[in-house]
Amino acid sequence: MSTEKNFHAAPSGVSQDPLYDPSIPTPSHAERAKTLAASRKSGALSTLAIDPAGHPYGSLVTTALFEGSPTFLISALAEHTRNLRQDPRASLLLAEATDDDPLALGRVTLLGRCEPLTEAPATCREAYLEAHPDARYYVDYGDFTFFRLTVESLRYIGGFGRMSWVSAKDWYAATPDPIAPFAGEITQHMNEDHKDAMASYCRAFSKARDFDEVVMTSVDRYGFEVSVRTKAGARPVRFAFSSPVDGPAAVRKEMVDLVRRARAALGE
Amino acid sequence: MSTEKNFHAAPSGVSQDPLYDPSIPTPSHAERAKTLAASRKSGALSTLAIDPAGHPYGSLVTTALFEGSPTFLISALAEHTRNLRQDPRASLLLAEATDDDPLALGRVTLLGRCEPLTEAPATCREAYLEAHPDARYYVDYGDFTFFRLTVESLRYIGGFGRMSWVSAKDWYAATPDPIAPFAGEITQHMNEDHKDAMASYCRAFSKARDFDEVVMTSVDRYGFEVSVRTKAGARPVRFAFSSPVDGPAAVRKEMVDLVRRARAALGE
Repeated sequence: MSTEKNFHAAPSGVSQDPLYDPSIPTPSHAERAKTLAASRKSGALSTLAIDPAGHPYGSLVTTALFEGSPTFLISALAEHTRNLRQDPRASLLLAEATDDDPLALGRVTLLGRCEPLTEAPATCREAYLEAHPDARYYVDYGDFTFFRLTVESLRYIGGFGRMSWVSAKDWYAATPDPIAPFAGEITQHMNEDHKDAMASYCRAFSKARDFDEVVMTSVDRYGFEVSVRTKAGARPVRFAFSSPVDGPAAVRKEMVDLVRRARAALGE
Repeated sequence: MSTEKNFHAAPSGVSQDPLYDPSIPTPSHAERAKTLAASRKSGALSTLAIDPAGHPYGSLVTTALFEGSPTFLISALAEHTRNLRQDPRASLLLAEATDDDPLALGRVTLLGRCEPLTEAPATCREAYLEAHPDARYYVDYGDFTFFRLTVESLRYIGGFGRMSWVSAKDWYAATPDPIAPFAGEITQHMNEDHKDAMASYCRAFSKARDFDEVVMTSVDRYGFEVSVRTKAGARPVRFAFSSPVDGPAAVRKEMVDLVRRARAALGE
């Protein structure tokens, strides 16, 4: 985890004091990248073409993470496979599902060497087939081979103004956020049923005062964020959990504790 | 346009005689690729990294076609821009929107040189801003520049078993299919309201006889395809228009003429 000073840079370059304590922990870029990668089943593989020699070549691949490395089940007939046999240097771009503004979304480019696993461990095969059940129809064809991208570095972009290079060491040490698969449901539930509680959090534990709406925008293992609508526009506020959570039940407990403490602090 | 012998290869390798005249014209791979590219607003750009030098680097870009070349409005601060300033070799991967089986979808890799347009023509700027209205907020920032990918060759993959390399000449000569923006509506309408007409087409103008359902699967400027459910499984049947069509009204006229001729041929 990390703290981010310019977590939400004002797009116009106007500096505004944050409405919350910027030392509140946030997921590190390695953790955000790993979480994103764990959620994606396809991406764009960049390799070096044989003809024209050394020309960057992008292709669509399906993928699954195994022990932190992207794996692929690819055909000897495919261009990218021929390219990798000639030169293993590659990168894999994984992006959040596209909507109207793709540049606002998270994406990660994993750089490294992508080499065949002559004897793919059964656990690798299982991880891949769990993500791609249809691949069982061709996994045993002679021309399909598992390849693994050993990550040497990566570029993470979390949207406008949140980006960095991340080391292989930090990538392999990071784990996907255990809350990510439930984040959509949790934010929807909070926004539908608990706006009052979130307003109390803001009044008790942030500098947000003069706001007429509060909306939860994200939740992760370390805490959650809301957007408050003030006269100066929408402003983010982040809250920390008392300790990292491991699932939705723990999030619920944190939310209930927080509203109790907020209401006590506010004398409500 | 072209004719494709192995248009629908049997996935198991079993050879089956087609139920229709395989000389019926179909869109060429250049046309299919151009149609796909014209429909996409973002893709994966592959460039050569500065550090590690020459390493293939994939990044997300928004794009618009201008005079047949993909254009980009990119920041001097971005990795891909720095890469292109050092070495203009690049490729752009554009893929149909993802669903459960991305490998079944069409995609194209355009290879070429991607260079800055020091003075982007007003028409280029307009084409880009029409596709990306939000870019008007930063189009005049000093660090944003238009780049253009001049296509030198491309790899088209239309799904399993339909793929080829296409020349730059064929790419620049091809035009996007004028029916593509309406294809979803047309197939939905035919499948909801005109199954009887499509069954007549099949009985009159194909070898399909013993089928219990017919579903339109695609339509393009040269004709359309249906899938008939036979005892041997789903089989494709293609029909030609009398001449290439330029819009939905012309498709409608072709469909009405075809059902009249089919019913006359069948003595209905």
